[in-house]
Amino acid sequence: MKYFVTGGAGFIGSNLVDRLLSQGHEVTVFDNFSTGITEYLENAKKYSGFTLIKGDILDQDLLNRAMSGCDFVFHLAANADVRFGTEHPAKDLHQNTIATFNVLEAMRENSINKIAFSSTGSVYGEAKVIPTPEDTPFPVQTSFYGASKLAGEGLIEAYCEGFGFRSWIFRFVSILGERYPHGHVFDFYQQLRDHPDRLDVLGNGHQKKSYLYVQDCLDAIFTAIQKSHEKVNLFNLGTDEYCEVNDSIGWICTHLGLEPDIHYTGGARGWIGDNPFIFLDCQKIRALGWTPKYTINQGIIKTLEFLQNNPWLLERRK
Amino acid sequence: MKYFVTGGAGFIGSNLVDRLLSQGHEVTVFDNFSTGITEYLENAKKYSGFTLIKGDILDQDLLNRAMSGCDFVFHLAANADVRFGTEHPAKDLHQNTIATFNVLEAMRENSINKIAFSSTGSVYGEAKVIPTPEDTPFPVQTSFYGASKLAGEGLIEAYCEGFGFRSWIFRFVSILGERYPHGHVFDFYQQLRDHPDRLDVLGNGHQKKSYLYVQDCLDAIFTAIQKSHEKVNLFNLGTDEYCEVNDSIGWICTHLGLEPDIHYTGGARGWIGDNPFIFLDCQKIRALGWTPKYTINQGIIKTLEFLQNNPWLLERRK
Repeated sequence: MKYFVTGGAGFIGSNLVDRLLSQGHEVTVFDNFSTGITEYLENAKKYSGFTLIKGDILDQDLLNRAMSGCDFVFHLAANADVRFGTEHPAKDLHQNTIATFNVLEAMRENSINKIAFSSTGSVYGEAKVIPTPEDTPFPVQTSFYGASKLAGEGLIEAYCEGFGFRSWIFRFVSILGERYPHGHVFDFYQQLRDHPDRLDVLGNGHQKKSYLYVQDCLDAIFTAIQKSHEKVNLFNLGTDEYCEVNDSIGWICTHLGLEPDIHYTGGARGWIGDNPFIFLDCQKIRALGWTPKYTINQGIIKTLEFLQNNPWLLERRK
Repeated sequence: MKYFVTGGAGFIGSNLVDRLLSQGHEVTVFDNFSTGITEYLENAKKYSGFTLIKGDILDQDLLNRAMSGCDFVFHLAANADVRFGTEHPAKDLHQNTIATFNVLEAMRENSINKIAFSSTGSVYGEAKVIPTPEDTPFPVQTSFYGASKLAGEGLIEAYCEGFGFRSWIFRFVSILGERYPHGHVFDFYQQLRDHPDRLDVLGNGHQKKSYLYVQDCLDAIFTAIQKSHEKVNLFNLGTDEYCEVNDSIGWICTHLGLEPDIHYTGGARGWIGDNPFIFLDCQKIRALGWTPKYTINQGIIKTLEFLQNNPWLLERRK
């Protein structure tokens, strides 16, 4: 099989690419490196079946040509920064909604009809049912990120109905693990590296969050693609547990042997549009035999260890 | 109040404009006349408070300038042709999703924060619950039109959360009545005018459809805006009855005194992406005191009478 991976130089994308290559597949990565990281493809470059195309999904012609000969598309490229949506609403529209449309059109141009898509638990807005199942009551959007991903889901579903595509749509909780280059673990570690005696925390620390370790996430994606063959295959991906930001702070500080003063900005939300609690009901993917191998605590420590072993990743952000 | 009405030269838009002007409001219509009809604004042009701006919503600068000084936006402009989505998927993306984004940005530019939006029952895809309430299980999209309107809803909701907008989102069944220039009543009447002895019908005639008369629709919109003041006010708009296409054929033929041979193309759907049954639970809007004054049968006859009295509308389509 020849796979096309948009956003393949990113956190989840590059881990996926390594997995696909190790399984003996050919992989073409398409990434504009706006947030993708060259170093994440060092392993991939060792494989003869690996092709890297630097390009922007908004360049439809280049995308069409790049996808030629592929059998299956993983569309992971996105503006994944949910926090700053109100600062640039056009970014989510272009990089998530229109970009997804372009990917679908390129697939049609190249007679490819299978797509896996990284959506988000943010499409549930402030869910009325928690843990939230895939068929929860029709949600109201609360973020530009969630709205743009919902629009992407809708487009994919319309292509499935109208053009005989098959899709696997994954609504993720936050994913963490090796190569995660932002998010609270990154921020907290960066702060504590700079000033081990003080930690600034957005919100009141009681925000409840659910996380999934990236390798568990990939296991779930492959399980769904292998075992679920509807026209549209929609799956929540998360663990059956959650934590508060304060729990995570405790695990991180214990691991680092630090006891910083913690300063909270206050409020139940970290920022406008922040969802205080995303917790997904993952019975549907579990019913296919998948189960996560790592707890949230373990995933956070693995992320932290990766950052400790790769100080270049923190240096380059300064 | 000064109202801005996108798509104000269209079927629902021009009826709304007449209503607003008769209430003594100022109205600016913004329409590109891609499907808008100049004659529909003949009455409006008699009012000094009426302004017509011919322009395309995809022209953000013009839209920004046109909206200056307005207090409230009715965003009705859209590609409303659900049937031919697969022939031009980009059309729904541009004219519905991106257009809605542009309207929201123009509002932000002009410090306007109230919007009413014409969405559609098509966002429910093939609903699992019928009649379908607003909070039905999270639907899967089946048409480009539905997907593009869902994307518009999501954008509006994100602006409400992120920028303090207030919105009234209406999920319509098919609307009919005076000035309805397409749809099955138009098509059937046009056919029977050309050849009174033969009627060609898409599908098997058993497709169930729900319709709402345009003046009832406007009553419901004003009721919702006056009485519902949440951040996001979502309402289904329809009647509590439905009909089969065959019922409508019977009413139309009886009214016209014709007994044509009826030829069905066959199949449960009129076309790919056609939803065989959109029937909305309208308890939420009814709880505000609104009730439709006309039955589907009466609405169809009113549409027919309008077409009989306005043959120019059929001539111009030839």
